[in-house]
Amino acid sequence: MGEFELIDELFAPLATHPGALGLTDDASVFSIPEGFEAVVTKDVMVEGVHFLEGTDPARVAQKLLRVNLSDLAAMGADPMGYWLGVQLRKAGAREWLSAFVEGLGRDQREFGISLMGGDTVSTPGPIALSLTAMGAVPSGAALRRSGAKVGDKIFVTGTIGDGVLGLRAAKGEMPDLDGADREYLVRRLERPTPRLDLGRALRGLASAAIDISDGLAADAGHVAGASNACLTIDAEAVPLSDAARRMLAKDLTTLEELLSGGDDYELLFTAPAAQAGEVAKLAADVPVTAIGEVTAGEGVQVTRNGAPLSFPSGRAGGGFSHF
Amino acid sequence: MGEFELIDELFAPLATHPGALGLTDDASVFSIPEGFEAVVTKDVMVEGVHFLEGTDPARVAQKLLRVNLSDLAAMGADPMGYWLGVQLRKAGAREWLSAFVEGLGRDQREFGISLMGGDTVSTPGPIALSLTAMGAVPSGAALRRSGAKVGDKIFVTGTIGDGVLGLRAAKGEMPDLDGADREYLVRRLERPTPRLDLGRALRGLASAAIDISDGLAADAGHVAGASNACLTIDAEAVPLSDAARRMLAKDLTTLEELLSGGDDYELLFTAPAAQAGEVAKLAADVPVTAIGEVTAGEGVQVTRNGAPLSFPSGRAGGGFSHF
Repeated sequence: MGEFELIDELFAPLATHPGALGLTDDASVFSIPEGFEAVVTKDVMVEGVHFLEGTDPARVAQKLLRVNLSDLAAMGADPMGYWLGVQLRKAGAREWLSAFVEGLGRDQREFGISLMGGDTVSTPGPIALSLTAMGAVPSGAALRRSGAKVGDKIFVTGTIGDGVLGLRAAKGEMPDLDGADREYLVRRLERPTPRLDLGRALRGLASAAIDISDGLAADAGHVAGASNACLTIDAEAVPLSDAARRMLAKDLTTLEELLSGGDDYELLFTAPAAQAGEVAKLAADVPVTAIGEVTAGEGVQVTRNGAPLSFPSGRAGGGFSHF
Repeated sequence: MGEFELIDELFAPLATHPGALGLTDDASVFSIPEGFEAVVTKDVMVEGVHFLEGTDPARVAQKLLRVNLSDLAAMGADPMGYWLGVQLRKAGAREWLSAFVEGLGRDQREFGISLMGGDTVSTPGPIALSLTAMGAVPSGAALRRSGAKVGDKIFVTGTIGDGVLGLRAAKGEMPDLDGADREYLVRRLERPTPRLDLGRALRGLASAAIDISDGLAADAGHVAGASNACLTIDAEAVPLSDAARRMLAKDLTTLEELLSGGDDYELLFTAPAAQAGEVAKLAADVPVTAIGEVTAGEGVQVTRNGAPLSFPSGRAGGGFSHF
């Protein structure tokens, strides 16, 4: 099976946007609606680094698409299209790709995004994927990391720490874990929920936003750095899932791990205190929790009952390091 | 050295476009000039597949950027920005990246394009790169593969077949090759010339265009397929470099190899016969040669002295297959 057969059979049905030109040209061609700006992000995933060997290819596809959509959500953008890079071993390539494409198709329908182009190549190494996602945002309305002001409230969506627990569960590190909790945590790891609707709703409301991929503490640190302010977070206020609470109660995890582990793909955002009512209205659709306040200074201060929490890496803002 | 240090020290200086936001946000944000459309392409390169192990990282960077720019040239687009995915082994990552970034910097200045974002991750496998390049073209003016009409003339830029000879030379398969020819051919392989100025000049003039990455015969076949016509090519008219001519004379290559080998990154385009004078004017700046005519039928017919030429793969349009 050649590359062109792969494109025709598997990828072309995903290229629903007219600008993809049916994947038959050297590039995609499209316009951005008047009054809108383009928002583009790119993420890479490698087997054995970002996902475990043997993971269902459909799950890999969903994670890949969702982590990029989460970046678009953090900027307040509407998804439009994506470009895909695939590196596959020759053996079993077709079977792997069929399942992968099935996962992509399911999620791109759910989130309203089209394949626009890409490149599929063979590799002697691990499977690896790259995805470049594009969205659109009204000109000047993109959410940034740099707008947090002293006195603003800090909010997060969903629950924090499920990603790192899901990874440990998937690796088989937690044999005593309840079956339903295991399933919940692994699903949170493999199929995060990009907060696209909330991101859109935060246009003109949030002063800063980021998605939590490196861990709450690290990503709060990125907002602090970009905004030249301190993010002061009350660890007791950080929303945890029931599964995480149960593990905490059994000493199977620590608050430090939950607040510094990555892969949550929730949004952290700040908004003026005067807008707290507007933010509360959004919480009717998506769980949103106030976890602290922007203060003068720099970096991140996480306190529990008034005492500072310290993180394994020695600094709030560690996160996973590749090198 | 963490990912954030890598970004600050090595990548941020390449992010000259304001829309890159200094690589400090979740995504890039930018507008497309009014009256223009965006043109986006993506290519992946894997060590051991697309470039030999031990290739100077600066050369890898230049090739990666140029093959994508060649796609933009084939669409008639002006380069704007690119997003980069890098997979690197931990050992020696910093040194490799420093040289890689140096190559990118040199070429992005030459071609007027800015780094806009990306992702750098570790891998236990071969080095691999992906690049998504964006350009802009006046709305409706993008060159396509599908516009060739019966009676149009077929043209190519530069010389054909140097890419495949360069690959054989780089692999050490041609020990008797003259030193200067070797150097020329390897440079053609490693540092192709994206025909951006010509692509721009072809807006409104060419009826179809493609860049030659899979080999002249294969890429002519793509135009034929998209245009529902036959591309009839006179093999004797196809422009060859002096180095390729010398190898042909010594039976070190065949016309079939030169016309079906990939990696030339020249443009093949068609234009109405009435425009031949306009095309000839362009040839003052870039070598352009007429090599045939669009005829009724389908596929590609390559003839030498009136007799059909057949290709190793059994069909004109083989090209390199990954799977």
